Amino acid sequence: MKVALLGTTGYAGMVLLRILADHPEVSEILPVSSSQSGESIDLADPGLGGAVARKTEKSGGKLLTVEAAAAARPDVVFSCLPHLASAKVLEPFFGKAVVIDLSADFRIADAAIFAKAYGEEPPRRDLLPKAVYGLCEIHREAIKTSDLIASPGCYPTASLLPTVPLARAKLLRGKVFVNALSGISGAGKKVQASYLFVERAESCGAYNPGKTHRHTSEIQFELAKADAAIDLYFTPHLVPLKRGIAATIITETARELSDEEILSVYAEAYRGCPFVRIVKGRIPETHDVLGSNRCDIGFHREGTTLFLFSAIDNLVKGASGQAVQSMNIRLGMDETAGLRTYGEL
Amino acid sequence: MKVALLGTTGYAGMVLLRILADHPEVSEILPVSSSQSGESIDLADPGLGGAVARKTEKSGGKLLTVEAAAAARPDVVFSCLPHLASAKVLEPFFGKAVVIDLSADFRIADAAIFAKAYGEEPPRRDLLPKAVYGLCEIHREAIKTSDLIASPGCYPTASLLPTVPLARAKLLRGKVFVNALSGISGAGKKVQASYLFVERAESCGAYNPGKTHRHTSEIQFELAKADAAIDLYFTPHLVPLKRGIAATIITETARELSDEEILSVYAEAYRGCPFVRIVKGRIPETHDVLGSNRCDIGFHREGTTLFLFSAIDNLVKGASGQAVQSMNIRLGMDETAGLRTYGEL
Amino acid sequence: MKVALLGTTGYAGMVLLRILADHPEVSEILPVSSSQSGESIDLADPGLGGAVARKTEKSGGKLLTVEAAAAARPDVVFSCLPHLASAKVLEPFFGKAVVIDLSADFRIADAAIFAKAYGEEPPRRDLLPKAVYGLCEIHREAIKTSDLIASPGCYPTASLLPTVPLARAKLLRGKVFVNALSGISGAGKKVQASYLFVERAESCGAYNPGKTHRHTSEIQFELAKADAAIDLYFTPHLVPLKRGIAATIITETARELSDEEILSVYAEAYRGCPFVRIVKGRIPETHDVLGSNRCDIGFHREGTTLFLFSAIDNLVKGASGQAVQSMNIRLGMDETAGLRTYGEL
Amino acid sequence: MKVALLGTTGYAGMVLLRILADHPEVSEILPVSSSQSGESIDLADPGLGGAVARKTEKSGGKLLTVEAAAAARPDVVFSCLPHLASAKVLEPFFGKAVVIDLSADFRIADAAIFAKAYGEEPPRRDLLPKAVYGLCEIHREAIKTSDLIASPGCYPTASLLPTVPLARAKLLRGKVFVNALSGISGAGKKVQASYLFVERAESCGAYNPGKTHRHTSEIQFELAKADAAIDLYFTPHLVPLKRGIAATIITETARELSDEEILSVYAEAYRGCPFVRIVKGRIPETHDVLGSNRCDIGFHREGTTLFLFSAIDNLVKGASGQAVQSMNIRLGMDETAGLRTYGEL
Repeated sequence: MKVALLGTTGYAGMVLLRILADHPEVSEILPVSSSQSGESIDLADPGLGGAVARKTEKSGGKLLTVEAAAAARPDVVFSCLPHLASAKVLEPFFGKAVVIDLSADFRIADAAIFAKAYGEEPPRRDLLPKAVYGLCEIHREAIKTSDLIASPGCYPTASLLPTVPLARAKLLRGKVFVNALSGISGAGKKVQASYLFVERAESCGAYNPGKTHRHTSEIQFELAKADAAIDLYFTPHLVPLKRGIAATIITETARELSDEEILSVYAEAYRGCPFVRIVKGRIPETHDVLGSNRCDIGFHREGTTLFLFSAIDNLVKGASGQAVQSMNIRLGMDETAGLRTYGEL
Repeated sequence: MKVALLGTTGYAGMVLLRILADHPEVSEILPVSSSQSGESIDLADPGLGGAVARKTEKSGGKLLTVEAAAAARPDVVFSCLPHLASAKVLEPFFGKAVVIDLSADFRIADAAIFAKAYGEEPPRRDLLPKAVYGLCEIHREAIKTSDLIASPGCYPTASLLPTVPLARAKLLRGKVFVNALSGISGAGKKVQASYLFVERAESCGAYNPGKTHRHTSEIQFELAKADAAIDLYFTPHLVPLKRGIAATIITETARELSDEEILSVYAEAYRGCPFVRIVKGRIPETHDVLGSNRCDIGFHREGTTLFLFSAIDNLVKGASGQAVQSMNIRLGMDETAGLRTYGEL
Repeated sequence: MKVALLGTTGYAGMVLLRILADHPEVSEILPVSSSQSGESIDLADPGLGGAVARKTEKSGGKLLTVEAAAAARPDVVFSCLPHLASAKVLEPFFGKAVVIDLSADFRIADAAIFAKAYGEEPPRRDLLPKAVYGLCEIHREAIKTSDLIASPGCYPTASLLPTVPLARAKLLRGKVFVNALSGISGAGKKVQASYLFVERAESCGAYNPGKTHRHTSEIQFELAKADAAIDLYFTPHLVPLKRGIAATIITETARELSDEEILSVYAEAYRGCPFVRIVKGRIPETHDVLGSNRCDIGFHREGTTLFLFSAIDNLVKGASGQAVQSMNIRLGMDETAGLRTYGEL
Repeated sequence: MKVALLGTTGYAGMVLLRILADHPEVSEILPVSSSQSGESIDLADPGLGGAVARKTEKSGGKLLTVEAAAAARPDVVFSCLPHLASAKVLEPFFGKAVVIDLSADFRIADAAIFAKAYGEEPPRRDLLPKAVYGLCEIHREAIKTSDLIASPGCYPTASLLPTVPLARAKLLRGKVFVNALSGISGAGKKVQASYLFVERAESCGAYNPGKTHRHTSEIQFELAKADAAIDLYFTPHLVPLKRGIAATIITETARELSDEEILSVYAEAYRGCPFVRIVKGRIPETHDVLGSNRCDIGFHREGTTLFLFSAIDNLVKGASGQAVQSMNIRLGMDETAGLRTYGEL
């Protein structure tokens, strides 16, 4: 199987390249970078080595142009490009390959909501009806037949997996407050003073609270499919990790629930899901899922006040891993192929 | 002025020692450690040097026993000992010196609430009526004349300074959700596997959520003084910092407030307070207050949903700095003596 | 293939368990812990999940006693136990399984040198002649037929791979100064104040310099096989990483060498070695090899003064990965089976 | 006393501003930034507060132009500008104020050596004879009367303080190998991908080894004043700290020395120096000196091979603190005024 990768040198691209290098069903990778095409992959990313080299042999271990990748007719294309740019660059691949887009361009089917969050109309509004939101555990069936998968954002993944099953069961009431802690790679490889080591080490704090972060729209849009009455407030925080998101979600339940009820809702929703783990007796930490494609979920009750907790690796389950999981599902392969089920030390 | 310090070798003690070393009104420090008495301070804490050496000359630069410190008749005694132990070890100093206790032993005037949180009756129940809760900006007048000051916990300081003024004005309604992120020194110098570098670096997550952390009682007890109707939920998180607490507080307001109203409540409450800064146009980060005795406060509104943000250095404003601030107030000195008003780089 | 693992809950054991979980030729893992036998593996190590669960099914996902593991007759036994303890606990497996010991007990064939470094005679002096030093690239042929492999220490691996080929060619002269920077996991999971997060974050420095660190004996002993005239000085440093060793080695060459000569010595020594990469035009960093079994090597010349640089992941190439590489070689499997050839982001 | 500060918003400038804010003899600070003049200091640096505000009142808490600062006729001017730029911007102050330049522009009296390291002639070659190298413990007498002080680099400070006394006594022989570990702030506030948090956390390694780093010239030039025969090799390493340098220096001694001899050389050289501490029985770590103006020095001998160790805070003793120490010496004030003698927790 031949796979093209747009945006190879960003953090999501770098992780995706590694997953594909060890993926048993991928035989050739076409690594694309518009800005660095012609350059050796190893130079752009010195950690790479043997496995990647073998699968990029046909490209001579070089970063390709979009045109060259399109000419090679890949079976699957992943885009790790920024929103608004991504849909445009993907143009030559629509209808010719399974497209898995990690940008926001196809995530929100409602053009007005998209425009409010991103300042412009969605770039290919006509394709929105064909796009499936690639939150694998929630939309697995639709993913199986889709040629345009909008892979979810990292914050939305950590926010939705704990809440959607309860929302679908109409067990949540009123406001849902998501407080998420994110490692710095969540910002992508942005060369800004605020992401320098000296600025971020030994510091933490909230940013874009309430309804002001773009991911709020995406989370709210998906939650509304489960329960239109939910009112979402989302507050992200930067903490000095390279990778990882821990979300603490506070909400009211429609009535006082027992632990068993909650567990049974999750058990039903996530039966046979290799990458969701419901944790009892402790609260998940990002370390538990580092490098893995898993989302660990825990909860705590105080009367009708419910606390949900989730932990993911923002670059794996929150980005590249989940995108590969979608590919696995779409192409009928083992859902875990190429993906880790355990957290690194 | 002669000052004794119980619990010199823990993190709060180490920071307190440094503040006292540079304090213009302190001429002699009596550094006490029951477990390491007789040992050189420099050995226990290799970062120390010149300034500390000069002020501990009479003790020969050694850690003292409690008895030796009591015999030296200090004007002020600080205790950085653990709760339940602290009140007992302070015994020889009651009535003979101004006692500033950084443990929980005198923080909660209601013995039943204390017992529920700490598993035992408060050790000197008889002294509770005399103790003042040393949250300086809130209880400044009472501190001026008290000989027993219960210096607040770090989480309570970060939780109460943003909420008490609004609660006193009866502007908050119903549940208050505090989500706090803390550096690892907040746990003290506990030699446990869970606080090892390898366990805490590259990890974050919540612990003891809702109503299960001891500090919940302390915060709830103080908030109730401001507005008895408030129902507090407190969820702490560990993040890989050495020092710092960032709190994100979510609550409803009794009616929709304007920014000006909120600012004027704070302005009145914190007029002339050198260590509280209300921040507009950004959200405080722990880095802004690192090493300083400041609490920075910010806020964000979405209709009647109010987000409050605070940042402190848990070992300074959240422990040793605030204790010294209490001493300064009690003894009629410049409130900022020995304390920094700016965050380190 | 059935594999037993002694010392499952230490850092090397935790990493080894993960490698074995994804190893294509390992069908069953027997996870042993004397101190925690009977406990669920997931409890001891919350990051674990699916893959490990499947391969430990027969043990019910529990930690086993040594006796139970021995009774199950494993094909291979790995020991991650401390030196001096390891050889004793391995007793039931000698002669019955391929033993790969990650402790120092069989690394130094000279009992007197061992005794000087470890304070006691080697525990099974009689077995020393049978043991092979498992530095795979240097002793591959001997490993192929050995049933007792002494897997090297992390510092020795980083020190020997850059130096042995040049020493064998008699190109080095006189003193060799190794300065190594190590992440904190190099100390193992020792619950000591000096390895607490607050003590190690924002600090670095040397320890046990010159000839005072135990690993000096191991490095010197191996280097002497290549060139008896070499005099080794080894100075380790702790830096605030979880994982990784970067070594800077300074020595004189017998005469002024060209880059081509150095490269050709390495090329010959490491031809066909999937885990050694000679880096030109930059100096390797630990990040390049994080999570991988690779050793990256670079060099710089100033006249006859030669600087060598190496980077490894101390828990993979410096411990568990190299042990698995030895197993792969010993059992005639693909040398890279289960091992990564690229560094994580 | 009125002090101007050029380059206020870089890391050295930020630390210098804080030191001056608490300096008992400085009454007014003129904070200059060409690129951000007119902007509020607090905006550029949110950690600032009370003390800085008071001393910058006359400037309205705003960043000034060079012209405005010159017009205010400061007594002392500090420049934290980059090399080559610094001397030019300082033009209006020469002959009118005591100039303390933290750039390299006046550090190397030999124009040819400067040109080789910096690619250009020194910008004010005519002033080189008047400039004093501001390594306070070594050139204290010259500093007392100089109006142009070239404050040393961070690496040179950590390299020279342990070596100069022994070199002056002609006790060192041949090659001196300095291996230094530096925190990331050593690179200044450079907005480059390689200094992003995600790139530097969990990584370390050497760069610019041997004779290729610019600071080699500065160290060699100063060492040659002590002993012309010394041949310096300097290899810096980046480690994931915000602040701190730990140097490990390896050299041969002219003959086998005793500990007492070494100690007595240092004792004589550093008698009455409040900021140099010779450490016995342990090796200094950067944590010991964090935030302080101290240089801690340790040593270890193996026959004639001598290991020296030093630790400084690169932004204090390695930059801004030492610059203020020079000012204190030059103006006859207490040498420790405004400077800390202890390391932070």
